[in-house]
Amino acid sequence: MKSIAIDMDEVIADISPRFLELYHRDFNTPLDIQLKPGQEIYEVMPPEAQDKWVEYIHAPGFFKDLPVMPDSQRVVQALQQQYEVYIVSAATEFRNSLIDKLDWLNLHFPFISWQHIVFCGKKIVNTDIIIDDRTKNFVDFKGRKILYSAPHNLLIKDIERVHNWQEVADKLL
Amino acid sequence: MKSIAIDMDEVIADISPRFLELYHRDFNTPLDIQLKPGQEIYEVMPPEAQDKWVEYIHAPGFFKDLPVMPDSQRVVQALQQQYEVYIVSAATEFRNSLIDKLDWLNLHFPFISWQHIVFCGKKIVNTDIIIDDRTKNFVDFKGRKILYSAPHNLLIKDIERVHNWQEVADKLL
Repeated sequence: MKSIAIDMDEVIADISPRFLELYHRDFNTPLDIQLKPGQEIYEVMPPEAQDKWVEYIHAPGFFKDLPVMPDSQRVVQALQQQYEVYIVSAATEFRNSLIDKLDWLNLHFPFISWQHIVFCGKKIVNTDIIIDDRTKNFVDFKGRKILYSAPHNLLIKDIERVHNWQEVADKLL
Repeated sequence: MKSIAIDMDEVIADISPRFLELYHRDFNTPLDIQLKPGQEIYEVMPPEAQDKWVEYIHAPGFFKDLPVMPDSQRVVQALQQQYEVYIVSAATEFRNSLIDKLDWLNLHFPFISWQHIVFCGKKIVNTDIIIDDRTKNFVDFKGRKILYSAPHNLLIKDIERVHNWQEVADKLL
């Protein structure tokens, strides 16, 4: 059985609305900001707010209430029938994210067992496939790399890409 | 540069004294119990206490104050000069262990960056070498496997083994 490593933030967990909500609260920025291809969310915030994301992301609870990406639960559960599915998230940078992320997974993806959860820094996993929104996580990866589209990565070319979970299903199921 | 995955419990963190202390507190067992080869600590406890370890290990703080294995800090820091060193610990089974383990590492191994910490279930890492006290973590591992001796694994034969951190240094430095 082949194995897949699936990222969390911006792949199964939608992190942008949470950032927008916090920037809106603190700087009265609009809640419907559209990022241009290649842009990170902090880059479109007012100068005095650009470093604020570090504080937000470190706060307890930030990762706890993130919305689930559309169709991700259904498709991940279907993938489990054909693949050994791991959730692999860069989490050790953010101390308070660890429990939030575990609780979030247990709530929204209860069919993922603790054996199949990896919280790490560098993604040194040996799965056959990786689905991630950051190409830095592909650097030392030997298997098939699938980039999950997010505004910040839309300028990257010559890479296998999916725009949503239905496309993951079309490719892998 | 070759890479090494190093386990935490019973390899760099000495988990037995903490168990003995808690069993002693709750069941007045001796503090100097010696395990025979192949024995797990709960197996030598009175029948009414055998399931208690699950409760201990899930409690917040259990992993926070574990003693450091002799020579492990010095040798791990020396290994970093020649290898990319990762700490890879099965932690996602125990929700409360995540922050305890991160804090413990930051306190006792501050030279290990967050990029080099992996908290997981199954150890699906692609390093060149693994040092671990549980052979179940060797099953799908492709590289060099070094068993770190602990009472429970002393009956396992035909495997590369180290008994202490000086032996790790002698082999790998």
